[in-house]
Formats: sequence, structure tokens, C-alpha cells
Amino acid sequence: MADFKWMSELHQKNKTKMVLLVMDGLGGLPMEAGGPTELEAADTPNMDRLAKEGVLGQTIPIRRGFTPGSGPAHLSLFGYDPLEYDVGRGVLEASGVGVHVNKGDVAARGNFCTVDADGLISDRRAGRISSEDALPIIKKLQDISIPGISIETELVREYRFAVVMRGDGLEADIDDTDPQKTGVAPLPARANSAGSERAAQLFNDWMKLAREKLSDEPKANAMTLRGFSTDPALPQFPDIYGLRAACIAVYPMYRGVSHLVGMEVQEFEGEHPEDEFAAAARLWDEFDFFFIHIKKTDSRGEDGDFDAKVKIMEGVDKALPKLLALKPDVLAITGDHSTPARMKAHSFHPVPALIWAPETVREDDQSAFGERACAHGGLGTFPATDLMPLMLAHANRLAKYGA
Amino acid sequence: MADFKWMSELHQKNKTKMVLLVMDGLGGLPMEAGGPTELEAADTPNMDRLAKEGVLGQTIPIRRGFTPGSGPAHLSLFGYDPLEYDVGRGVLEASGVGVHVNKGDVAARGNFCTVDADGLISDRRAGRISSEDALPIIKKLQDISIPGISIETELVREYRFAVVMRGDGLEADIDDTDPQKTGVAPLPARANSAGSERAAQLFNDWMKLAREKLSDEPKANAMTLRGFSTDPALPQFPDIYGLRAACIAVYPMYRGVSHLVGMEVQEFEGEHPEDEFAAAARLWDEFDFFFIHIKKTDSRGEDGDFDAKVKIMEGVDKALPKLLALKPDVLAITGDHSTPARMKAHSFHPVPALIWAPETVREDDQSAFGERACAHGGLGTFPATDLMPLMLAHANRLAKYGA
Repeated sequence: MADFKWMSELHQKNKTKMVLLVMDGLGGLPMEAGGPTELEAADTPNMDRLAKEGVLGQTIPIRRGFTPGSGPAHLSLFGYDPLEYDVGRGVLEASGVGVHVNKGDVAARGNFCTVDADGLISDRRAGRISSEDALPIIKKLQDISIPGISIETELVREYRFAVVMRGDGLEADIDDTDPQKTGVAPLPARANSAGSERAAQLFNDWMKLAREKLSDEPKANAMTLRGFSTDPALPQFPDIYGLRAACIAVYPMYRGVSHLVGMEVQEFEGEHPEDEFAAAARLWDEFDFFFIHIKKTDSRGEDGDFDAKVKIMEGVDKALPKLLALKPDVLAITGDHSTPARMKAHSFHPVPALIWAPETVREDDQSAFGERACAHGGLGTFPATDLMPLMLAHANRLAKYGA
Repeated sequence: MADFKWMSELHQKNKTKMVLLVMDGLGGLPMEAGGPTELEAADTPNMDRLAKEGVLGQTIPIRRGFTPGSGPAHLSLFGYDPLEYDVGRGVLEASGVGVHVNKGDVAARGNFCTVDADGLISDRRAGRISSEDALPIIKKLQDISIPGISIETELVREYRFAVVMRGDGLEADIDDTDPQKTGVAPLPARANSAGSERAAQLFNDWMKLAREKLSDEPKANAMTLRGFSTDPALPQFPDIYGLRAACIAVYPMYRGVSHLVGMEVQEFEGEHPEDEFAAAARLWDEFDFFFIHIKKTDSRGEDGDFDAKVKIMEGVDKALPKLLALKPDVLAITGDHSTPARMKAHSFHPVPALIWAPETVREDDQSAFGERACAHGGLGTFPATDLMPLMLAHANRLAKYGA
């Protein structure tokens, strides 16, 4: 990978419109041997037509056998090898709630926890406190100030929050403070390099002040910090691919990753596929590339609810004509990883992928969108990081290499 | 890539004969949805039999989504990753017309252009002057001499020529002189390193003399130079693969690339497939490996003439028994890239590939040579740079790695 050098040399601009529709955790498994996967079971006449007219394949999100988190899996889809471009969890979470992490800032992801009278952790996630209950607690943290730096603290959801420090001389090479078990105290922030000592000290000061502020909170009277990180300075979509790219996603993390790669994250009403497609319609003239993210396929997979995951897919399919009416030149439909309901978790399996591009696609002989069909598709099995070059190629946006 | 280290350690010699038959621009597209590609439409009973007895797959010439030029695409077929082994255009063109570029020489590709009375470019390709008209102009340029160096100038075809300088202290890190637009003067040759300054100055001297010689030529009174480059010193076929390799090709560029990788470029009469196969027959005992190049599949694809491209394929198939009568141990049939008639241009699509090797092949369940069949083939979808190792393996020419 890291063929960004070539992408930035070869990309050419034109008027084509490209859509990357990601159903999170798309890939699945049969509930019993010989049975259909979620996608195969779903009644998806529109996607099946696109499969017939387009070309199928399956992607390897990171490396064969790797089960990806959502952050790395999306980086891959956007063309960034996540083993090469390491984006810290703190930066991901902060970006996800709209807190920008710039060069020299240090971001951390916080988890509320509860500690007993001796300061030992009794619940590492503060009983998975609701977002509603967590908001007033976050407000207290937002009152903390430390001379010489500025601090931004935002709730992500439930027990998770992001805290970003800005100031001179801050570096992020700091260990997590979560001891990963109960019955012990949270660890102090410890610097792994001389350059990070000032930031570690400031985060320790902050935690001390925060503990004081929360001392009488019954549900969440302490916190751990992890994923200390700074702006990864990722190469940007407009430079690599020559694309004005819009992110249409409901969930913070996906919005955060999109921001980091240089997409313009959009605000819109509603959270259903049709709302997202309506947002794309509204923005159609302004952008070349639309990343549209559907979260609930993954959520229902994590719940272990096969039928509910099927229903989400069917809902996307039903709304799809709204998107197709925009006449995209290239439409790719895939997932960031597999989340089989049978496993109730992300998995390592390859991910079904479909490229539909009426002008340029070499159709294969598959006629339905599903795991088995994708394994026979004309695109073969390929690294997810190749999806962007393939989409650009289908959009006539890559010049010939050499003569 | 760059697994040449392993190839040179593992290769072993024997008496097997290998043929790489390249139909340029082989891959295609259906003219209408659901229709056949050129190769699928062609009546090719011999290739279909080889497909049935052999194994199919599809190659990625450079990277997924990249549309290759013919030079890089052939380097790939020969096992050289073209993104790693960068062969300058000047060297490619010169080699293509039989002008060898050795270490310390500097080659450039020239384009005739026309300039107006003010010296501003009015046509960057001299009206695509014919080869016939260009030849006497080249003759004038061949008269130019500059003390201390020797210069070789040859027409490539139409408005394109190659010029090679030989002498002491020449380096090739020089910018193109083509301003890429009309209405401005050609740029001077500008060195990008101290070591290249002498060569840049000499090329500027040469261009000045050349402009004087051509001042009264109505069709082509000036030129631009590009692709300044020297011998890329590519690892050589006999060293990497242990093969005595013959190139049987009509067109200069392919002969040039073959020379650069250490093949022995052959002279022969005629230009049809049967002439090329006859040349192979004549040379059969002298070589281990035969690269046979068919150009016209690409030419008819570029013309956008689906039926004519089909006819070229059928002609190759018809002549094939002549090649099969030689009883090659390994025959690979593929293209360097796709040139779908529908697109009238090179494209990014994968390329059908077939390996036939009666003694060693693991046959798959495909029975015709075509894009859809190849997408299902037993070789899968693989980088074109892996074709040579696969051919060697099928020829029992690679020793076991490890015990």
C-alpha cells in the first residue's frame, strides 16, 4: 500500500459522481450449516439487480484473519492501510464528537468508572451509565481549567468521553491509565518519552481536579484515560484522490474518521437510510464523492439478532431507489467488516463488495448480492484499501500509467 | 515484489520449453449489458481446448484500478514491478527502434512540433505528421554533430523519435521540454542535479542546431524532448530465471522492452501470427523461453472495432496448431492489459490468463477462454508479476524452498 503517491499523480478530475455505501458489519454467517447468511436471506431486489449489472468481489479489511475495529476498517475502505496509518483512539473519539485535534494537541478517550472509598475501581464502565445521566457530569468536567493550556471535554456516549488538551510542549506518548481490572486504583498517566512528560503531568493534574469535582457523584466518581494521541496528519482525500468528499453518517466515530481523512462531514435531519439518501440528494451538486454510512447492520449483528439484521438490510434496499435516482456514475456497496449475528461480534471474514458503474464496469456472471456470490465475483478477493482505486478507475478518474 | 532474489536462488535448468503468448490489450468488455466480450465472442476452439486442459485466472497488470501503458504492462508480465523498476520513456523508445542505451548514455523521446514565426508552439505533434514525411526530417537531424559526444537519432513513428547521446559525464535527471500546451515556446532542457548539467546543456545545443536545420520545414520545424533517461540496468532474464529467452515481436516498443530485460530480440519475415510461430519453430532448439507478441488485438480495440478485434483473436487461434505442434511444456496465453473496443482505449480491467502445461497443471473446471471463465479460474486473480514464477513452476524450473 501507500500508493497514495501514485493516486495523487494519476488522479484526474471530471464530473462523475461516486457513492460508497457502507453497511457496517455487512458480512455474516449462516445460523446453521447450509443456511443463508443475513445478506443472502434478505430480500434485496434492488441490490440483486445492481449485482447482476455490476461486478462482485470480497474485501479483506486489514489482513487475512484480522478482526478489525470500526476505525481501522473504515480507514481501509478509504484507502489507508490501518497498520501503516495508526490513528489513536483519543483522536478518533474526539473527532467523532466534532472536537478537532490539531498538531501539538493531545487527545484521550475517557471512560467514566466508579471507585470505592479506598479509591479502588468497582465498575470500569460506571454501570454503563446512560448518556442522559452522563451529560451533567461532563458539564462539571468542562469547568476545569489549568493555567497555560486549554482543555476541551465532550461526552461521546454513555460512559465514554473525549478530552483534548492544547498548549505548548505537549506530546502524546503516554500509557493508558485503565488497569483493565477492578479492585485496583486507576493508574497515573505515565510518559514514555521525555517530550511527553509535561502532557502526562497535566493529565494527572486534570484527573486530580476531575476526581474532586466528581467526588459526590454516585454513578461515576472517577475515570480512566486511554488512547493518548495527536493529529495523525493523514494525507487528505482532496490531495490523494482529487475528490470533494461528503460524509453522511449518523454515528460520531464514522464522522470522526471521515473528518480525519479530509471529507466534509454533513449535518442532516433523521437517521434512516432514506434520510441519508435525501441528504446526498441535497448535496449532490456540491461533491464528487459521497460516503454514506449505515450503522444498524452492525448493531443488530452485535445483538445476535439475525432477523433484525436482515430487516435493516431490507430497509436499505427499499430506500435505494432514492439514491439510484441521483444516477451515480459509480456506486460501491460493501461493509467495513463482518459482524455475523451468530458470533454477536465483529469477525475476520471477508466482506461482500459490489461495484456498479454502468459505463465502465466489466459485469461478471453473478446475479445476487450475497457472500457466496461475492466469492465468485469478477473482482476476486482483494484488500479493502484497493476499493478506492477501483472506484476511481470506474469513474474514469485515473490517468494511464506510462505509455 | 522484487522477489528476483528468490527466483535467482531457486531457478533450476532443464530442457523444458516455455511460451508466453501475449495478445496485446486482450481483455475486453461486452458492447451491451449481458453480451459477450471480444474474447468470449471469438470462435477459438484451440484456446478453448487449452482452457479446458489447463488452468485459468486473471491478472492485475500493475495495481487494481491502474490503467497501464504498454511498456509498464510488459515489464509486469516479465516479472518486474513497473512501480519499482522505472524505465524512462526515452530508453523505451530508443530500445524499441534498436538503439541501445548503455550505462552513461542519455536517451530522450522526441516529439516533432510546429512553431510559429515567434517560436511559439502551434501544434504539439506536428499535425501527427506521417512516418513517410518524417523520415527525411530525421535524416537532417542525423547530420548534427557536437564535439566530444556521439549522437544517435532515429524515427520511432509519425511525430515521435528517439535521440541518444553518448559521452563522458552525462546524467539524465533533466526535465521535459514540452510545455504541454500551445501558444508558448518549447522549454529548455533543465537539469535537476549538478551531475546532469552537462547533458542538459548538450541537449540544448542539439535542439538549437536541430531548429536551424528544420527552420524551413513547413510540417515540423521544432521539437520537444521528454523522458530523459539512461540504462535502467534491469536485472536480466538469464540471471533471474536461468532462461535463454527469445523475443518474437513486430512492434519496436515490445522489442525494446524485451531487449532491456535481457531477451534476445529476433528478426523474422512477415508480421502475422503464423509468421511469428514459424520464427519460434525455427529457433525452437536455441531457446528455453519464447515471448511472442501479437499487437493487433490492441490496435483493433483502440479503433473501437469489436468485430475486427474478434477476428484477430480468431486468426491467432487458427494459427495456434503451428505453435502447439512444437509441443511446448508450458504455454501461457494472456494480454498485457485490457483494451475494450467499447472504450477505444487501454483500461484498468483485469486480464484473462491461461496456463497450459500437460505435465504439471492442476486443471480447473473451466472450459472456454474468456473473461467470465477466467474470473472463476483456478489461478484466481493475481498480480501479472507472478506469471513468470508460475510459468517456471509449471516447467519444473523452480527448486523446492526449504526442506
